Amino acid sequence: KMLGRVLCTVLFMGALPSLVEASQGHISVILVGATGDLANKYLWQGLFQLYMDQVSSGHSFTFHGAALAALEQGQRLMFDILKKLACPPDESPNRCAVLKDQFLKLCQYHQLKTAENYTVLNREIERMLRQEGLKEAGRIFYFSVAPFAYTEIARHINSSCRPPPGAWLRVVLEKPFGHDLKSAQQLAAELTSFFREEEMYRVDHYLGKQAIAHILPFRDQNREFLDPIWNRHHVERVEIVLKETVDAKGRTSFYEQYGVIRDVMQNHLTEALMFLTMELPANVSRAEEVLQCKLQAFQSLRGLEKNSAVLGQYQAYASQVQEELQKAQDYTSTTPTFAGVLIHSDSLRWEGVPFLLTSGKALDERVGYVRVLFKNRAYCTQRETLRDAGHSQCKAKQIIFYIGHGALNTPAVLVSRNLFKPVMPEDSWREAMSQPDLHIFGQALSDYYVYTPVKERDAYSVLISNIYHGRKDFFITSESLLASWGFWTPLLDSISHQSVRLYPGGVENQHLLDFEMVNGELAFTLAEPVELLNPSRLMPSDYRTIQSKFRQSPLVSAWSEDLISQLASDIEKTASRTVAHTGQFHLALSGGSSPVVLFQRLARHHYAFPWKHTHIWLVDERCVPLSDTESNFFSLHNHLLQSVRVPYFNVHPMPVHLNQRLCVEEDRGTELYAKEITALVANASFDLVLLGVGTDGHTASLFPQSENGLKGSQSVVLTESPVKPHQRMSLSLPLINKARQVFILVLGKGKHDITTLLSRVGHEPRKWPVSGVSPSSGQLVWYMDYEALLG
Amino acid sequence: KMLGRVLCTVLFMGALPSLVEASQGHISVILVGATGDLANKYLWQGLFQLYMDQVSSGHSFTFHGAALAALEQGQRLMFDILKKLACPPDESPNRCAVLKDQFLKLCQYHQLKTAENYTVLNREIERMLRQEGLKEAGRIFYFSVAPFAYTEIARHINSSCRPPPGAWLRVVLEKPFGHDLKSAQQLAAELTSFFREEEMYRVDHYLGKQAIAHILPFRDQNREFLDPIWNRHHVERVEIVLKETVDAKGRTSFYEQYGVIRDVMQNHLTEALMFLTMELPANVSRAEEVLQCKLQAFQSLRGLEKNSAVLGQYQAYASQVQEELQKAQDYTSTTPTFAGVLIHSDSLRWEGVPFLLTSGKALDERVGYVRVLFKNRAYCTQRETLRDAGHSQCKAKQIIFYIGHGALNTPAVLVSRNLFKPVMPEDSWREAMSQPDLHIFGQALSDYYVYTPVKERDAYSVLISNIYHGRKDFFITSESLLASWGFWTPLLDSISHQSVRLYPGGVENQHLLDFEMVNGELAFTLAEPVELLNPSRLMPSDYRTIQSKFRQSPLVSAWSEDLISQLASDIEKTASRTVAHTGQFHLALSGGSSPVVLFQRLARHHYAFPWKHTHIWLVDERCVPLSDTESNFFSLHNHLLQSVRVPYFNVHPMPVHLNQRLCVEEDRGTELYAKEITALVANASFDLVLLGVGTDGHTASLFPQSENGLKGSQSVVLTESPVKPHQRMSLSLPLINKARQVFILVLGKGKHDITTLLSRVGHEPRKWPVSGVSPSSGQLVWYMDYEALLG
Repeated sequence: KMLGRVLCTVLFMGALPSLVEASQGHISVILVGATGDLANKYLWQGLFQLYMDQVSSGHSFTFHGAALAALEQGQRLMFDILKKLACPPDESPNRCAVLKDQFLKLCQYHQLKTAENYTVLNREIERMLRQEGLKEAGRIFYFSVAPFAYTEIARHINSSCRPPPGAWLRVVLEKPFGHDLKSAQQLAAELTSFFREEEMYRVDHYLGKQAIAHILPFRDQNREFLDPIWNRHHVERVEIVLKETVDAKGRTSFYEQYGVIRDVMQNHLTEALMFLTMELPANVSRAEEVLQCKLQAFQSLRGLEKNSAVLGQYQAYASQVQEELQKAQDYTSTTPTFAGVLIHSDSLRWEGVPFLLTSGKALDERVGYVRVLFKNRAYCTQRETLRDAGHSQCKAKQIIFYIGHGALNTPAVLVSRNLFKPVMPEDSWREAMSQPDLHIFGQALSDYYVYTPVKERDAYSVLISNIYHGRKDFFITSESLLASWGFWTPLLDSISHQSVRLYPGGVENQHLLDFEMVNGELAFTLAEPVELLNPSRLMPSDYRTIQSKFRQSPLVSAWSEDLISQLASDIEKTASRTVAHTGQFHLALSGGSSPVVLFQRLARHHYAFPWKHTHIWLVDERCVPLSDTESNFFSLHNHLLQSVRVPYFNVHPMPVHLNQRLCVEEDRGTELYAKEITALVANASFDLVLLGVGTDGHTASLFPQSENGLKGSQSVVLTESPVKPHQRMSLSLPLINKARQVFILVLGKGKHDITTLLSRVGHEPRKWPVSGVSPSSGQLVWYMDYEALLG
Repeated sequence: KMLGRVLCTVLFMGALPSLVEASQGHISVILVGATGDLANKYLWQGLFQLYMDQVSSGHSFTFHGAALAALEQGQRLMFDILKKLACPPDESPNRCAVLKDQFLKLCQYHQLKTAENYTVLNREIERMLRQEGLKEAGRIFYFSVAPFAYTEIARHINSSCRPPPGAWLRVVLEKPFGHDLKSAQQLAAELTSFFREEEMYRVDHYLGKQAIAHILPFRDQNREFLDPIWNRHHVERVEIVLKETVDAKGRTSFYEQYGVIRDVMQNHLTEALMFLTMELPANVSRAEEVLQCKLQAFQSLRGLEKNSAVLGQYQAYASQVQEELQKAQDYTSTTPTFAGVLIHSDSLRWEGVPFLLTSGKALDERVGYVRVLFKNRAYCTQRETLRDAGHSQCKAKQIIFYIGHGALNTPAVLVSRNLFKPVMPEDSWREAMSQPDLHIFGQALSDYYVYTPVKERDAYSVLISNIYHGRKDFFITSESLLASWGFWTPLLDSISHQSVRLYPGGVENQHLLDFEMVNGELAFTLAEPVELLNPSRLMPSDYRTIQSKFRQSPLVSAWSEDLISQLASDIEKTASRTVAHTGQFHLALSGGSSPVVLFQRLARHHYAFPWKHTHIWLVDERCVPLSDTESNFFSLHNHLLQSVRVPYFNVHPMPVHLNQRLCVEEDRGTELYAKEITALVANASFDLVLLGVGTDGHTASLFPQSENGLKGSQSVVLTESPVKPHQRMSLSLPLINKARQVFILVLGKGKHDITTLLSRVGHEPRKWPVSGVSPSSGQLVWYMDYEALLG
């Protein structure tokens, strides 16, 4: 009935769709959570904009607001919102008034609570379409509700509200999409049981910000200029920044659970990061290609560690939480309201370039930008005072995608004039007027080419239009969502109990939140000023290194991260000392998962390590090809060797794959390796052997209940593991015991039982091979984290 | 007699030496070239300063000026100079006047022309010493003459003027010490036949500049602060700059032969570079340790290429040369009067850090400095306008050794206040007064800690004092001199016919001499403005790439450097295309010297090369251990593999060293390699094989007059080379001809005969194995430089 009325009106207006055009089909938009905050602020306005833009598209529309409230109450709330819909400045007031009137008539409220409600809604849509003789093009369900409600709504839609075959379903989801990798996986799995991937449109409204949305097109349209410089050789650093002046007051029930990293970094700033770092697909408008490149870019990101971030919390936050969440006076929150995070990509393109993500509440200004600063590669022979102001190559070179607010107070794209004049699409971006006195990012605005949007568009309008056009590349796929959580979750876990720096808020913060990169990690530049510290918030130090004995040998123990850094620097010290004495360093490394973090630490923090004079040997190997991901050597290569410069001749993988077959006795791989050791290592005495311990007490690939490799003259042996792959090659216990130093690394709660046991037993290598490790004239040191030691 | 008088005077003055002190012995200083320019300007004044400083040291002195002029004329010239000797401001006028009087009495002129003159001089010294009953401590011969005269003077001194046993001889030499490596070697060898290394003091007067001389002590005394940051992780760039306003007028006879690189870069600026880059010895005042570290630093320098430098010549130079050297009007000079040079060190400490050396005449200002600019690693969360001016970590961080002149007009050491407050020796450096309005290197002077010398000392005074004290670390040893020439000579050779950019001189140069780093090379930032070009000076372009046919296959030809860069980018293109199609790229590389430059080019300029997916195979190998410097693989590793990231599994050296023995047939290395190829390379068809050609027509290790490897089913063979090491392993011709692409690289005049021959013969692999290269379904391309092609 309503629809009929609209179509009648339409017939009298040239600018509005004719019946022929309307034969494109009908689209029903169902906004679930129609009376909520987001709907009130942005979504209805966005839907109205969609209607204004697409009224002549040939599609017809109805808009269904839905919520839990009963019909009358809901209707009232919803129409209160709809009455306030604004006309955009670039629209003629008359046309807008007519269209607003029509739009209101196309809007209907529904209570959606029970399964039956959904069935009824579906029936109403079908009846309406039948009545008007319209073909259904598709349905858009926009979820603007708390995520705990997602699953149930999804179930109802799937079972009762799917459009008929031939028409599409688009389900629009608002963040948060989980709280960490696990919860995101769970939510994604649930949704996948109701919707196909192509039906889901996960919103990150930053992808609707005009400056952010233009990053990829900019890179595409300016390939000619950017190709030579968009890489580690030319980019000095990248800053992705979102600063807010508001605080979390009134929202602490949400904020206390999420914090700044989950709130804006895992999603908004990460998306910007991906647009910058991904390889450019041949066609940037093909969602599939963009997604592939994005996932690759995620894979290249170096894992975050605790010290990749600096964290802050504005001082009033604690009392806001206490008040709003009715917490006790002594309740302390470690939720960060400010974070700076240092991200590195290990791709050939970006290796070594720091990407600094910064965001916080209660800061000195509201501003958002993505800033790419290029290296200054020029030398100006003329003295400073004589340099021409205009075009000196010695000035800073930068490209800035200015999201909004701040000094410019508009979205913009800025390119330093000494870089290049960018190609910009004339229909959507135009050169901005100059503002002579404005300085930005250290330079006069006149030093840049500055472009602003021809029409400033609200992010939600842009996104709703993209939903309508099926532009999936403006939305977050399950894969990329999980990749992002996979990237952020380890950091979130490792900082969950970390103390945060308190800051007063606003301009009072002064230099308190400035930070800098130190050896690939972040640290505040100012030592914490004592007067700001609330003494009750001091945490027990996370850093303790206790030294004592374990099985009569020295024991180094600490939290795992500190233990690894201690071990890495002990290995470096040993290496440097040995190279100084003998000219070379023979290091035998074990496989398994524990050493991986050690390898990474060595690769990233020990550039003075004498790799050139180090020989790398394997303690044990699985009988798989070296390039198999199960291979110990593969892991060593992946996490260490490919990042450092050990000469090829000094790398000694075990010969488990001779004659294109694996560990066949007659190929005599063990003999070959033993010969190589004899030829190169003086007295076959390694300078350092790194071992681990299995939960069954095995070490190297020497397993309990087998004589193999425990004694005798063989220095390299083939053994059988109780777990797959069964066949192994291993150094023998007698050879290990010839080493000048042996370090045993034990990490994690899972090892607590075996370490407890080992602390009580004697020399029983047949039961627990590791108990046989006892260098005859060398030194043994245990490196054990608190979890392994104390449970 | 003269000496007697002085000693008498001395007895009456407390500040002057007693006879007991004088028992330290007598020193004779012989200044050869006593009436020349340098002697006039600096040396006599330096000797007078020495006398003033050391008059109470216990040594007694005589000063002998010598030149070719006859006695009377020489005496007159010399005493004209001596009369003008000035009293330093920090000396009491009375004391100075008395000392000057004494000094003049200790000075004597000698004609030194014939062998007899030297004998006479020696006799006079001996007689004088006998008369006064003085023990001889030593003799200093200061050569202030043109270098062509060195050998003869040296011969005379050695044969007639050596002091008696127990006294030392110190011979002081002024640059130039040769014109290139060869001439420097020759001069050094000649001098070595007369003097022992420890007797020679080669002057580089920059080592007497107070700011330069303080670099090593500064690094030593500030180890605590510098250790963490004095490396590639923290240093952004280093500038070593010596700008002059004067031109070469009146000195063109010297300058036209030398140019700016030989005049100031090979010596002065290189010494500063070494002080910055060398590893710090445990004891910086031990000359031997410093020298060792310096030589190591030289070894780490990456070789210079033609494009490592930008060159200029001030416009008036040409006419000055024509006039002063009586050259014809159409004479053109390519001698640079301006140069910017980009230097890289490949040490772990400095890898990737650009060291920019700049010097020139007729520039806009006179100034010299060494500037170390650190990376900016801070992010300032507060907006720019709110940042406290004083201590922001976001300001530039630099350390500057200011040699003199320029805005500061004094030697100085500057350290940014946001870096650290340096430790400076209080007796020789003091904090300078602030000059509120002075800006320097982009910042207010108040942003730095500024230190100036307590006493400003002329470089020659410092050096003469160091000669007296036997501080050999302030002088250039033969080894380090030759190392420097070894470093600079290849650049000098490669630019000897290169055209230079003309510049008007002074402030008119504007941006004409600004330059920047582009892909590891230097280039002027401005394209050459046409109006400045003198058309008659245009050189035939050095760059030509002609494409035609050779032996019915495509031929690419150019000057060798351009040919290599073409070949490298063709290989990269092939690699990228192949990886895009098949996921991997199988590249077989030859040994020999020609590919070395190619390897270096690939390592340095092709960071987008898909190394991760590239398999590296060897075309041939010498039967030596892989880590032997003779091994083809060693060279490949050294020049390419160690700089790129080819996974270990993708590197396939030939198995010439199985079972710890070389190419023994029963170890079946050839079979093993053939199997590996079959297992990994589809159809055993390499994507690209790179070959060379020997002067005898051999290619790979397939030699003339041998059937071995020319036909048959064996894909890898053992062969015999006519030259050592005789035993080789090689891919066979049939296997090579299966490749999808074969590139043959031929470089140098030495190959002209064989290429001429090859252009005329057909398919005769037994005579000329390379003539058998003919891929059955692939493509063959010849890359031949002009010298090989045209002779």
